[in-house]
Parts: sequence; C-alpha cells; structure tokens
Amino acid sequence: MHSRQQHKPLDFLRGSIDKVILIKVKKNRLFRAKLKGYDEHLNLFLEEATQIFEYQDDDGNIREENENLGRIVIRGDNIIFLNLAQ
Amino acid sequence: MHSRQQHKPLDFLRGSIDKVILIKVKKNRLFRAKLKGYDEHLNLFLEEATQIFEYQDDDGNIREENENLGRIVIRGDNIIFLNLAQ
Amino acid sequence: MHSRQQHKPLDFLRGSIDKVILIKVKKNRLFRAKLKGYDEHLNLFLEEATQIFEYQDDDGNIREENENLGRIVIRGDNIIFLNLAQ
Amino acid sequence: MHSRQQHKPLDFLRGSIDKVILIKVKKNRLFRAKLKGYDEHLNLFLEEATQIFEYQDDDGNIREENENLGRIVIRGDNIIFLNLAQ
Amino acid sequence: MHSRQQHKPLDFLRGSIDKVILIKVKKNRLFRAKLKGYDEHLNLFLEEATQIFEYQDDDGNIREENENLGRIVIRGDNIIFLNLAQ
Amino acid sequence: MHSRQQHKPLDFLRGSIDKVILIKVKKNRLFRAKLKGYDEHLNLFLEEATQIFEYQDDDGNIREENENLGRIVIRGDNIIFLNLAQ
Amino acid sequence: MHSRQQHKPLDFLRGSIDKVILIKVKKNRLFRAKLKGYDEHLNLFLEEATQIFEYQDDDGNIREENENLGRIVIRGDNIIFLNLAQ
Repeated sequence: MHSRQQHKPLDFLRGSIDKVILIKVKKNRLFRAKLKGYDEHLNLFLEEATQIFEYQDDDGNIREENENLGRIVIRGDNIIFLNLAQ
Repeated sequence: MHSRQQHKPLDFLRGSIDKVILIKVKKNRLFRAKLKGYDEHLNLFLEEATQIFEYQDDDGNIREENENLGRIVIRGDNIIFLNLAQ
Repeated sequence: MHSRQQHKPLDFLRGSIDKVILIKVKKNRLFRAKLKGYDEHLNLFLEEATQIFEYQDDDGNIREENENLGRIVIRGDNIIFLNLAQ
Repeated sequence: MHSRQQHKPLDFLRGSIDKVILIKVKKNRLFRAKLKGYDEHLNLFLEEATQIFEYQDDDGNIREENENLGRIVIRGDNIIFLNLAQ
Repeated sequence: MHSRQQHKPLDFLRGSIDKVILIKVKKNRLFRAKLKGYDEHLNLFLEEATQIFEYQDDDGNIREENENLGRIVIRGDNIIFLNLAQ
Repeated sequence: MHSRQQHKPLDFLRGSIDKVILIKVKKNRLFRAKLKGYDEHLNLFLEEATQIFEYQDDDGNIREENENLGRIVIRGDNIIFLNLAQ
Repeated sequence: MHSRQQHKPLDFLRGSIDKVILIKVKKNRLFRAKLKGYDEHLNLFLEEATQIFEYQDDDGNIREENENLGRIVIRGDNIIFLNLAQ
C-alpha cells in the first residue's frame, strides 16, 4: 500500500525526460517532442517539437501536416493528456 | 458518523489501482485503461490506455473506434467522471 | 443566528449519504445514484449510478435513455446542482 | 467609513436565510427557492426549489415552465447573480 | 511613487458606495444599480438594481428593455468591467 | 543576471501610470484609457476610458465606433494584453 | 537525476530574455516579440511586439497580416505555447 501512495501521476514523467512524447492539447492541437522539463502544473519544456495538424480532406479522410517548432514551452492548463515514451 | 466523514471520493480510487477503469473526459473523449496513479487534482497515470471514439454513422447509430495509446497522463481538470472497476 | 452560520451548504450532504440523489452536470448530463462520499470541491463518489440521457424526438417530445454505470467518481467542477433525497 | 468596510456582499445573504430568493445561473437557468445555507464560494443549500425554464414559443413570446425540485445544493461557480428577498 | 503603489483598483470602488454604477457582465448582461458592498473577488451587493437588455430589432437598431430587480448579489467572476459614478 | 530576475511583467506597468494605454479584452473588446491603478491580478482602474467597437461593414472593411465610459474598473481575468504607452 | 529536477519549464525562459520569441495565444492569436520579462503565471512583458493575423483567403490559402504593437504585457492564462529563440 505504501508504494502505491508514492505513485503520483507527475512522477511518472521523470522517466520520459529526454524521450519523445506526444502532447494532446485542447482545440485539437497535437505535438510530438522531446521532453526536457515539467512542473506540477504540467507546464512543459520541449525540444525538437513538431506540431501535427489533423484535418479531414474532401473525401472525409484524416490527414496530417507537420510544422517544425524547435524549442517550445507549453502552458500546462491547455493540455488534455500526454502519451509517454514506451 | 465518524467513518462516513473519512470516505472522501478520491480515497475510493485506491481500490482501483492496477484495475481497468473508464475515464470520461470533456469534449466527448472516452478512455479505457489500467489505473496506475492519481493525485488530488484527479491527474491520472494510466497504462494500456485505449481512447474510444464514439460517433454517429449515416444511419444515426452510435459507433466506436479504438486507438491504442499505451502509457498516458491525463490532466485532471479535463475529467468529467471515472467509472471504477466493479 | 449562531446555528444558521453553521449550516454550510455541503454539510447538508451528510444526511444524503447512502441515499439516492440526482446530479445535474454541465452539458446536459444527468445522473441518478446512491451517494457514498463527497469532499469540499463537491467531488462525489457514487454507487449504483445511472446516467440519464434526455433528448428530443422527432415530434419534439423530451425522451429519456438510461445507462447503468455502477460505481463512479464525478469531478466536482462539472456539477451544476444536486437534488437531495427528500 | 468603518461600517462600509464591513459590508461584504456575502454578509447580506444572512438576512435572506429562510426567505425565498431567485438564483440566476449560467446557461439561462433560473431557480426560485428558500435559502437555507451558503458559503464563501456562493455554494447554496435551498429548500422548496423550483427551476424555471424560459423559452420562446413559435410567436416569439417568452414562456415559462416550472419544475419542482425540493431540496438542492447549487455549486457556487455556476451562479451569475442572486435576487434577494425584498 | 509611494502613493501610486497604494492605488489598488478595488480601492477606487470605496468612493462609489451608495452611488449608481453600471456593471457589464459576460454574455452581454448589463446592470445599473446602487453599490452597497464589494469584496476582493469583485462580488457586489447592489440595491435598486435594473438589468438592461440590449438587442437588435428587425431594422438593426440597438434597443433596450429594463427589468427592475431590487437587491441583488452578483458573483464577481462574471463581471467584465464596472463603470463608476462620475 | 540579477537585474533580469527583477523584471517581472507587472512591474513594467508602473511606468505607464497616468498615461494612455490600450487594453485588449476577450470577446473582441478594446479600450483606450489613462491607467490609474492595477494589482497582481491585472485588475485595472482607468480614467477617461473609451471602448472601441470594431466591426465589419457590408463591404468587409473594419470599422470603429467609440463610446466614452469615464472611470472604469476592468476585472483582470478578462484581459488578453495591454499595449503600453511608448 | 538531480540536475533534471532543477529543469523547471519556466527556467528555460531566462535564456530567451532580450531575444525574439513567438507567442501562440488562444483564439488563434500569434505574436512575435522581444522577451523582456516573465513571471510564474507566464505573464509576459514584450518589446517590439508584432501581432500576426492568419486567415484564409478566398482560394483557401493561409495569409498573414502584421500589426506593430510596440511594448505589450500579455496575461499568462491566454497563452498556449511559446516558441523560444533557437
């Protein structure tokens, strides 16, 4: 029981430092980037960040366009969930 | 009366650690995953997570598509409710 | 006057523990469930929960569909009001 | 000047305890009820509560329908304003 | 410099106590009322309050309708700005 | 390095006291006014305030209408950005 | 491990002081400016700020228009992410 109480969700981010994660943000924003830093608000500092734009084409298929952003800071309150490195 | 006051809602999550729960998130997002960690903001750490997309097909039927996500951290303020393991 | 100041709204929830209440949630969500626990944020732990879906049929009548959910935790900031056991 | 500084807005609610007030809530919700308790977040405990539904009929007239709710707790952050007993 | 730092915005409300102010609220709500009390959240207690409904008529002109409300408490987080007595 | 850490954003407002600034507010609201006071929430006290209404005319051109407001208090959480006196 | 825990996201902003950054703000607002100050809420003080308006023209192409703003203070809670100087 003791060890369970120590498993706070944000502690699990430590193992993803320097690894590539996916960041799902409100308003359908999606980022892929290397995690360099985070805090208790889920503010993130990321390197080699790419924003992935998903949209439907005229045939209804989901399409992707990428934009390279480099180093970014995301304000935590915009984040829905993080997909950690496996 | 005394024991009732101890039954804080988040304490009930402890019994669902390592079990599969459903997580209903704003904007009609739905996840099924194994609960590994949580905190007082309802931030969650989840493993073997699947996002379930519900939509209406042309005949008005509710349909589901699943996407395997692996390990994710959901920011608590997006959550509407959790459906715990029975 | 003294007794009035003690009647904080959330204190009234204590008398509804183990009783069935209605929970009205943002985005027209409605739940009926047995109250098992709550905290100062109005986070709720509920058993035998049912979500009630209200919608208009083609004739403009309000219709209901129910979904059994079992044990759920609702995050308090989604709640508009609770209808307590009489 | 001294007495003015003591007139905090929520202190004025004390005089409406056990009286009927109107509660205007976001998303055009309106309640009429007897005030039984409140706190600093404007969480309210109410008895003999009625929700008043206002809508436009086909001729553009404002119409009302009432629903008896009994005892309710409204989460304060949904409230726009209270109309106190005269 | 010293006197400037003392001019906190809410301190300026003190001079409008017992005077008529305009209160602009989210979702295009507008009130005219006598200010009787306020706190640091901008919660307001008002007397002789009137809600002013602005709408466009069929010719595109801005029109006003007033509703007398008497004594009201507005929850501060709904407020955009106050127009103080001159 | 030392001096940089002292340059908190709100400290820069001190130099704009008694000067005319532009205040961009959510929902496309824009104000021009003389800054008289502020606090750490960016609540502002302003004099000689004018609200500037921007809209598109039938030809798609951006048009402006001004409304003199006099002395106003803006609640800080509505503000997007301030354009300081040059 | 020790050094990682020190890498809070906002600490990385220190290296961008006096450099040009991009600021992505809710409601599709975009700014390019020289960073002069920031705080823990991500409130920013910026100089030589330009707001970049992105829109689709009649042919569906993304177009840009710039507006010079000079010195601005952005309230942090509007910010989605910052793109730091490389």
